[in-house]
Formats: sequence, structure tokens, C-alpha cells
Amino acid sequence: MLSFESDYTEGAHEKVLQRLVETNLEQLSGYGNDHYTESAREKIRKACECPEAEVHFLVGGTQTNAVVIDTMLAKYEGVVAATTGHVSVHEAGAVEYTGHKVLELPPQDGKIDAGELEQYLKDFYGDGNHDHMVFPGMVYISHPTEYGTLYSKEELTSIAHVCRAYEIPLFLDGARLGYGLESYGTDVTLPMIAELCDVFYIGGTKVGALCGEAVVFTHGNTPKQFVTMVKQHGALLAKGRLTGIQFDTLFTDNLYRKISRHAIEMAELLKKGFREKGYQFYIDSPTNQQFIILENYNMERLEQSVKFSFWEKQDEAYTVVRFATSWATKREDVEQLIALL
Amino acid sequence: MLSFESDYTEGAHEKVLQRLVETNLEQLSGYGNDHYTESAREKIRKACECPEAEVHFLVGGTQTNAVVIDTMLAKYEGVVAATTGHVSVHEAGAVEYTGHKVLELPPQDGKIDAGELEQYLKDFYGDGNHDHMVFPGMVYISHPTEYGTLYSKEELTSIAHVCRAYEIPLFLDGARLGYGLESYGTDVTLPMIAELCDVFYIGGTKVGALCGEAVVFTHGNTPKQFVTMVKQHGALLAKGRLTGIQFDTLFTDNLYRKISRHAIEMAELLKKGFREKGYQFYIDSPTNQQFIILENYNMERLEQSVKFSFWEKQDEAYTVVRFATSWATKREDVEQLIALL
Amino acid sequence: MLSFESDYTEGAHEKVLQRLVETNLEQLSGYGNDHYTESAREKIRKACECPEAEVHFLVGGTQTNAVVIDTMLAKYEGVVAATTGHVSVHEAGAVEYTGHKVLELPPQDGKIDAGELEQYLKDFYGDGNHDHMVFPGMVYISHPTEYGTLYSKEELTSIAHVCRAYEIPLFLDGARLGYGLESYGTDVTLPMIAELCDVFYIGGTKVGALCGEAVVFTHGNTPKQFVTMVKQHGALLAKGRLTGIQFDTLFTDNLYRKISRHAIEMAELLKKGFREKGYQFYIDSPTNQQFIILENYNMERLEQSVKFSFWEKQDEAYTVVRFATSWATKREDVEQLIALL
Amino acid sequence: MLSFESDYTEGAHEKVLQRLVETNLEQLSGYGNDHYTESAREKIRKACECPEAEVHFLVGGTQTNAVVIDTMLAKYEGVVAATTGHVSVHEAGAVEYTGHKVLELPPQDGKIDAGELEQYLKDFYGDGNHDHMVFPGMVYISHPTEYGTLYSKEELTSIAHVCRAYEIPLFLDGARLGYGLESYGTDVTLPMIAELCDVFYIGGTKVGALCGEAVVFTHGNTPKQFVTMVKQHGALLAKGRLTGIQFDTLFTDNLYRKISRHAIEMAELLKKGFREKGYQFYIDSPTNQQFIILENYNMERLEQSVKFSFWEKQDEAYTVVRFATSWATKREDVEQLIALL
Repeated sequence: MLSFESDYTEGAHEKVLQRLVETNLEQLSGYGNDHYTESAREKIRKACECPEAEVHFLVGGTQTNAVVIDTMLAKYEGVVAATTGHVSVHEAGAVEYTGHKVLELPPQDGKIDAGELEQYLKDFYGDGNHDHMVFPGMVYISHPTEYGTLYSKEELTSIAHVCRAYEIPLFLDGARLGYGLESYGTDVTLPMIAELCDVFYIGGTKVGALCGEAVVFTHGNTPKQFVTMVKQHGALLAKGRLTGIQFDTLFTDNLYRKISRHAIEMAELLKKGFREKGYQFYIDSPTNQQFIILENYNMERLEQSVKFSFWEKQDEAYTVVRFATSWATKREDVEQLIALL
Repeated sequence: MLSFESDYTEGAHEKVLQRLVETNLEQLSGYGNDHYTESAREKIRKACECPEAEVHFLVGGTQTNAVVIDTMLAKYEGVVAATTGHVSVHEAGAVEYTGHKVLELPPQDGKIDAGELEQYLKDFYGDGNHDHMVFPGMVYISHPTEYGTLYSKEELTSIAHVCRAYEIPLFLDGARLGYGLESYGTDVTLPMIAELCDVFYIGGTKVGALCGEAVVFTHGNTPKQFVTMVKQHGALLAKGRLTGIQFDTLFTDNLYRKISRHAIEMAELLKKGFREKGYQFYIDSPTNQQFIILENYNMERLEQSVKFSFWEKQDEAYTVVRFATSWATKREDVEQLIALL
Repeated sequence: MLSFESDYTEGAHEKVLQRLVETNLEQLSGYGNDHYTESAREKIRKACECPEAEVHFLVGGTQTNAVVIDTMLAKYEGVVAATTGHVSVHEAGAVEYTGHKVLELPPQDGKIDAGELEQYLKDFYGDGNHDHMVFPGMVYISHPTEYGTLYSKEELTSIAHVCRAYEIPLFLDGARLGYGLESYGTDVTLPMIAELCDVFYIGGTKVGALCGEAVVFTHGNTPKQFVTMVKQHGALLAKGRLTGIQFDTLFTDNLYRKISRHAIEMAELLKKGFREKGYQFYIDSPTNQQFIILENYNMERLEQSVKFSFWEKQDEAYTVVRFATSWATKREDVEQLIALL
Repeated sequence: MLSFESDYTEGAHEKVLQRLVETNLEQLSGYGNDHYTESAREKIRKACECPEAEVHFLVGGTQTNAVVIDTMLAKYEGVVAATTGHVSVHEAGAVEYTGHKVLELPPQDGKIDAGELEQYLKDFYGDGNHDHMVFPGMVYISHPTEYGTLYSKEELTSIAHVCRAYEIPLFLDGARLGYGLESYGTDVTLPMIAELCDVFYIGGTKVGALCGEAVVFTHGNTPKQFVTMVKQHGALLAKGRLTGIQFDTLFTDNLYRKISRHAIEMAELLKKGFREKGYQFYIDSPTNQQFIILENYNMERLEQSVKFSFWEKQDEAYTVVRFATSWATKREDVEQLIALL
């Protein structure tokens, strides 16, 4: 059975695992106070060209979103996000669970629009008293988005400018950041993200690690007593080495970028295959997630030999499904899939 | 430098790591819906002699405590625990963060006393109206406790009887459960725990795993939509294989018990060494954590060559410190330590 | 200065106040355990033709919404409401503060549509797994809505049917319920609301009381330990007599209905005035809140002699404002206002 | 039937009620933006001799405690209180519901001791790392305490000094503040409280008002967006006039002090009666709450003709009960009670 079900169907990149094995019996202090974690921090600061960055490691994406959003917001604030944002719809209300509202803006291909954001903030701070409303205290974007789309440098810069004008931090969810950075057409780089965002995370779970996300506070803005609040959220790993060693490996010899590039190459191959066979795309995605509109009978036929994800019903006859590639995708699997189409 | 700093200074048992390597490229569904996780569940059910048990895997201890307590309590309920309980004092208020009070009972060597528990519940449900108070909705015990002590079969049975009489679930925090089960003098077994408790967890982080705790609901009492609430807490691992494969290995060929036994043997060796050199014990611990009262100058001397944990000041001249053994402790390290005393 | 700023600019109806004075020195038990509160409960049960109804008194609208929603939802559930619903937008995130998401549906003149609700629920429970999403656990509607509009008997019945089909309780926010019940064209009655809704509240603050809302659970469905949770929310009035006596008076001799009728008459007079002077209505409201589109220069002119509320900017030249009548509105004030137009 | 059940068995002082009647039809803006509320604020500032004080009105005591504590604490902080403190034990977990732990100190006659507080803080910030513990972020005291006892000037000053040394705000719960200020032997004044505390509240519910507590932030330290957070807690009264007019009246012509004095005189009369009849006091209370140890048969006898509150069982034969006087207590009622003893 082929599988393009998600980008987390395999374990970790072999070098990551090998490093865990090599360092296994070294005795290290817990909670991120070990030299591998410190080394990973330093390598990430270098990759971001951001020497003042503060880097913390958490376990998974939803956890990271909830912890970052909750610890950065004042109690009377909410987070602005696209209606399709992961925090809005697919995290079981983890943000609301921390007491904060997700203030939703209409999405444009999964993204928020700087102009609409500005209008929203202008209205909020404009006429009338808004003391009875949730204050916008942060802007959340995902890059790539939940639909595989990417912000351009210009779009990202515009959003950052609006955020700065209103003194609202910008948070970028990079659960699949590697796949965004290695997308063929992107003009957005890691240092640019570090410069434009107040906080972002570099996803490991979907890009070569067993688990782990690296949160980067870009200008000495880690919330006070952050570690205590991470503990309070049940998110502090006793064996911090687990995330530290993995990220140290991923940021050695450009591994994170290289394996992300592979996923993009596989996605482009897969896209080409679907396109040549005349399939219809739900959205034009330049990253590792591809959304295809399948006729139901064809979907059922394909399900016999390949796993993919149900996304949503298009109508009675058609269904939108997702095929995901990853760092672990094999070329022959893509070729077999294309042969099946 | 020797280290007896904690029982989480090494990575994972070699067999656990080896199994992660062997299965690494197998494509598996996420969120615990893989066959290794299912196999681990089945092995745990067998080890507990509890075929109807429902087993879920979480990442760490504080997270597990917060998730289990929050999902099992009604909104108007709190959890009863010893003042020294981990949930009371060392989890940064993770339980309160979920909106629930920890109702503290005075500890007896780290344990709660069935008689005191009964009196507390009798008073609560006795004279007067208690609608303005937090209702006791669960009893939390740790076994081993935070001081390394253990409940006897009789003590545990008495507490369970009180809980049943008042229809309050009993939750056992087994972060170091292996070390409790393998303690020389204990008469408490895993099936007994499964019979007496409503929910408990088998700790992996401190007993051979990189991370992971196995939560066991013993009689079909998993809270409704538990997975959704795990996600809401940011505690749902995308690559559920990580905990599934580790616990599957730990519960193969009795590995969990064997490596726990080793830690106990090392602790007994260490105890013997301290005792023979005339050191004073803060508490009589039959498990892997040993609390020693050191004269300050001697503590500073030892710190030159061995790592251990500060516990608390005894007085101006003496300090209580902890030495922990684990599945990974080397006999020669214990011997070297004893030579240093 | 005339004022149509809101329906809470005066104190209480004189009979309400007089009753507070008459009973003032009677010694009564606290927290709603007094005979006036019990009498108010009984009168409300009668007015609702719902003998099994359980009635609780709270202080204000936002508080009531938060308490009812939080105490009725499971932890993994959210409340479905119109995007324009009071809970969605004007309660400073009070619902999210209790840990629950407001799941927003597009509004139709401030109302939710039974068909859209059904489609939403059908999608949620249909294809795909929704364990990572917030479960819809309650439907919230306001009647009158925040735009003064009303559900018809047919609309309300359809929504109730959808709720029952999906076993989701229906909650009606009646902050201005009197003005809905006395609207000229309505075919919705209080007994009908009691029959169709699982819980609703009869607003006092905006309809003749100094403060107070009467929450009605219609079929023995008061959440367990409700009083404890009310206390936990800081919403339990020590002097329960304050709300009990007020509602007892409002539900004596049909007072609640009579004073509501007056507000409607005043609103109709005001509407007629605006209409005859050629003003444009933002929405067709059959209740006590009237939304008018004013040219900005005219708005500024009127502001010299009359208070009203800014609602939203229509465009650069026009603004939507609200004029509210109430039980206390004087006919001569309406006439003076019309003369000013 | 005589009643000494509590200090909230009557409505409001007649002057308070009369003022509500007189101002009833005046049209006023909501949410505390009216001139009576502003006048009340000014009078309280004067009574406190604290011109920079910021005064906000809330409805009840538990609500006030939860709002003040939650809005002043950082997310990683808890509030230090006596184990017997109202927030610790009789508010249904309202503080924990906001996500914050109550850090309990052993009580001395209902009070906390400056020395024990200092030791606790010294230990917390002393040896060892406390990142896994809840940070002490505020000190809560009640004056009078839940046992009717009072801090002396010296005790209060000592506590304030410890708080300042550790930069932790001091919060005084004055639900019964009038009765503390008018106690015969006290050397604590309102201006002194305003000088020593960072925030405190002047209780209205138990001292002459229908409802209402006046929160005083003493040095421009009202939390940012406080009104929004009050709304978020469901604690913002639409008709702010209700609390504003009541406090304006209570702080006119020294009314608050005069009626408090009456309650103290009645309490002293009652104490004298109990003492002369040889009754045993549970605690020596200089304020309006008196705790008496009654033999059970005598308690049952008294219950035939007088209401009082069960406090706790002393042993099998004796029970501790509370008799409360208030601004409304009639001298003849106290005399009748004494005759019954």
C-alpha cells in the first residue's frame, strides 16, 4: 500500500536517529539544560542570522501554538487568524482552552491579507468604544498555510508593517517551514522571517524529527518566566535532550533544508503527474501538500492501493483530498502513484 | 563527573532505541492509530491482568496529571492530594491552570492516610452546607511518592475502599512505577493497582523511555471524547508511534520490570554504602530515590566529583539532598560514589 | 438633553423599587433561599406554563451567558452562535475565558438559519474524523437579537428540531425578552419558548429591574451542583432577595408584559416619526431598538440635543446609530425627538 | 424568630434605599460612567486620604476577589493566603477557576504572620530552582478575617514591609471593613490601609448596601484594560448607578462608619451577654462575628427561637456556631437573645 496520507507517517531522518543512538548514554541534565540543546539553539540563531534570538523547544504544533499564544497575550487579548488557520479550526479549541479568543479574518487561499488586517485594526481602534470586545493582541499566520500556500516577501512584509504600526506581535506557525523555505518560487528566507516576525517556530515533527518544534523569539521578547509557563501547560520535556539533539542534527550541514528540498521535488513530480493526467487541483500549492479534486468513484478506486487524506466534500460527485510528500517520500512511490492515476 | 542527579539523565534503554531504528521507515498513521501502539496497549492490558483496560499514551508526567485530572473532574470538583504531592507543589500550578483546586491533605512520609482521607470526606459531606466549597472529585496518590516511599497493599486497599464508599475515582501517579513494583519489600503488584485504582499511569520517561507515560483507565471509564481533550491540552503526539513503539518494547519480555529491578539493586547498594559510612537518611526510601542529610562542607566537597539534587535545607549546617539511581545506573559509578563518601 | 442611548438608562420600575422598600427590613436567608425568590420562581413557572421549570437568578447578561454556557457544555464542546451574537462579539471573550470556543455561523438579520445550522452539524458529524475540532455542544440564539429582530414561531421551531435531532441543547438569550414578546407582529409566546428551548433567560436589567436575569431550565436539566458553579463564577448574590423581590414584582399582575408593551409602543411611535421624515432604516426591527442610517452632518446636529448610540460606520458620509426605547421612555421625549428630525 | 444568621439578612440602609428611589428616573449612562459613581469615587478617595486612588465598583465579594486576583497576577503566579482565608476555602474554587493557585500559609487566629510570610518568600527565592513551582504574586489578607479577628497596625505594617521587600502586591479583602474600622480596640484606619495596601476593597454587601464592593487601587496601579477584564469575568454591571449611588450615600456624612459602629455596639452587647452567662468563646473576636461553643442540647434548644450559623463541630458534644450582628441589628433582639441564653 502506498501512502501519501500525511507528512508524519515515518519516524525520523536516519541521521537524527543515529545521533540519538550515539549520545544515548551520555548523562545530561534535564529540561533543556544540556549542551546539545544549547548547541541547537546556537545553530538556529546562525541559520536565522539573528544572534539575539532566544530559542525554546517544545514537542508538537498544537502545544506550541497554545503555549506561545497564551504566554504572549494579555488576559484581555485574543489572537487574529484566518478562519482556516490551524488554531481556528483543527486544534480542538486549544487556544480558547487557555482563555483566549481566536479573532477570525476571512482567508485568501489560506492566508490573511495585510489590507484586511489593517482595516480590522483600524475599525477596532477607530470610532466607538471597544472595551466590551476582545482586544487583538497578536497576529497568527502559518507558512506554509494549511492549504500549502505561501506568503510572498511582499505580503509578509506588509503584514509585519501593519503589526508594527499597531504594536501587535506577529507569530508565524512554521510547522512545515522547511517545505516553505525550499519551495521553488518563494522569495521568503529564514533570516527574513526572523526579521519580520516577533516569534515563529521551525517545525520538526513534519520535517525529519520524531517530535519537536523550535520556538524562536526574535528580539529578547521571551515572556517572563516562560519555562514556568511551559511547565504549567504540561509542555516541558524532562529529557530536553530529545528535542535538543534532534534539532542540533537537523541544523548541522544544512540537513533541515536538504531534506525539505527533497519533499518539494517529490511534490513537484507528483503535481506534474496529476496535471498531465488531467486532474483538477483544488488550490495551487507550491509546497508538499497537494489538494486534488477527485470524482468519487475514482477516489474509491485509488483508495484500494494508496492512502491519502479526505479534506472536504466538493459536491455530491466530487471530493477534495490531500496528497502529502515529506522528507521521507520515495521517488518510486510517487512514480507508482502516477502510474495508478 | 559521576551523576546521580535524577532518573532521567540518560536517553532510552538500548532495546527501545533499537526498536525505534528498526521500525523507522515503516509508514504508520498518526495520533496513536498504528499497530505498535495497539500492540503496546494489549501488552499493558495483559501485564495488568485487566482485559477491559483502556490505554492511552501521553508524553510526560505533569502533562499526564493535568490531562487525567482535568478530563475526569466535573467543573465544580478538585483533586485531593498530599501537600507534598507532585501536583500540589512541583507542576507550576498545571492543575489549577485547568481550573481545578488541589485539595491538600497532610502527608505521612509523602503518602496520604486512608483514615485522614475518610475523615475529610465525612466532614465535607457531614453537617453544614458545602455548596460554597470545592467538591472532592478525585483522589491523587503517587506510588512511589515524591519521597521514594511506597503504599503497602493494606494502605492502598484502604484508600481504595474510602474512594469507593464516596464514589470518588482513585488516580495513581506511577511516574516511577517500575521502581515501586520492583522494590524489595513491596506487596503491591501491577494487577493489584489495576484492580484498586480507577486510573493510573505507568511512567516511561523515568523508566527506560525517551519520553512517554501510559495512562490506564481500568474499567471502561475513559472520559468521553478523551482524544479531543488530549488535543485541546496540546498533548496529542502526531507521531504516536514514538510512545507506542517504546512501550511495546518495554512490555516485551518483561523489560520494564527487569530494568526497574536493576535500579533498585543499585539503590540498595548505594543505601548500604551511605549507611556503612554513617550517613543519616532523611527518610527511609525503599525505591530508587535516596534522601541523605549532608553536612554542608561535606556536600560542597562531594559536589566536586558527583552530581546530585538539592532537596531542602535541614538547618544552617545540614542540607537534604537526593541521589537517584535508574535503569541506566552503572555499578561502577555507585562503587566510585561510595569510595568518595 | 433627550436620551435614547440604551434601555438601561433609568433605575427600576417604581413598583419594583417600592417592593424593595417595603420588604427591606425583613430578615431573609441569603443566596436565593428566601420566600420572595421562591415566589418569583413559581410565578415564572406559571407564566411559562412549565411547572417543571427550574429557575435561577443571576445579575447581568454577560454573566448569565457565560455561566449557562460553561455549566452546560462538556469541556470539549463549544457553543454555536451567529457571528453577530452578543457572546461572539460584545462580551470581551467571556465565553472563551471559560475555555469554550464560540463556533460562529453567518447571521441573517442577526439570526441563525435552521438550514445553515443543520448543514453545519451534518458536515461536522459527516465524512471525516472531527476529533481535532471543537464539538458543537449548544446552540445560542438571542431573541430579540442584537439587531432588534425576532425569530418567528416557524423559525424557532425549525431550529429546535435541528437541535433535538442532534441532541444539542438550545439556549435563548432573552436579555430583552419582554420587548420580543410584546412586539406587534410576533407569533412567539413565553410558553412556546419554554417548550422549544432547553434553557433561556428572561432579562430584567433592560426590562424594569435594577439588575437581574431569570434563567429557566425547562425540563429538570439544571446542571449538577449549579449553585456551586455560580459561586465559582463569582455570580452568586449574597442578598438573593435583590433579584427575587424584583422578579416577584415583575411577574405580579403581568407587570413585565405591560411595561414591555409600553416600550414597543414608544418604538413604533419613534419608527413612524423617522419613517415620515424620510430617514433610512439600517434594518427592519420590530422591537425597542431602532437602527437608523444618519448622514454625518445630521448625526452631529442631533447629538447636540439627544443621546443615541454609535453602531457602525456605513461609509464615509453615513453612520448607523441606534435609538432605544424602554419601559421608562416618556411619550413626550419621543415626540420631542421627532420634532427635532 | 430572632436571627443572627449573618450580616446580610436585611436589604439596605434606609438612606441608601431612599437615594435609589430619589434618583430612579434620572437618565444615566451605563457601566459606571455616571456622575453618582464618579462622586462615590471622589468621596472614597477623600475617606482614604488617597487622592490618586482609582476606585471601581463590583457586585459581590467572591467576584471581587476573583477579579482583583486574576487581573493583578501574571499567569505563572498564585496568591498567598491563610488556609482559612475566604479565597482558600469558601469561594468554590473561584480563584483556581481563573487558573491561579492559592498558596496557603498556616493561619494564626485567621491571620497570616509577617514572619512566616517572610520565611516562605525567603525559602522560595532562596536555594534551589523554583521554576517548577507557582510563583507568589500577591498576598491576600482579610480584615476583619473570617474569624472576626483584626490585624494590628504593627502586624499590617510588617506584612506590608515584607510585600514591598519582595515586590509583591498586598490585597486586603474588606468585605466587612466597616466592622473592622469601628472595632473598639483597633489602631488601623482607612488611610493607613490605603497607604499600606496596593489594593483593597470596602465591602458594601455586608455593610448597608443591597450589593456592591468598592475596589481601591491605591497608587495608579489599576491593571491595564481593567474594565474589559471585569466584563470578561461577567462582573460589569450595566446599571453602574446601582453601586455608584449606594456608595455615594454610604460615604456621605460618615454613614458607612456610623452604621458599622452600631454593629460593633450590638456585638459587644451580645458578647457581654454570652460572657456573663458563662458561655465559652471559640475565638476572641473584636468585630461583628462572634463564635460560641455550644453544647449540642443547648444549641438545639436555642435553634427553636433564634437563627445562627453552624461553623464546625468541636467534638461529639459541642458545636461551634456563629452569631453575627450588622448595621441592621436591633438592640431589643440582642436583649431577647441574652434572655434566652
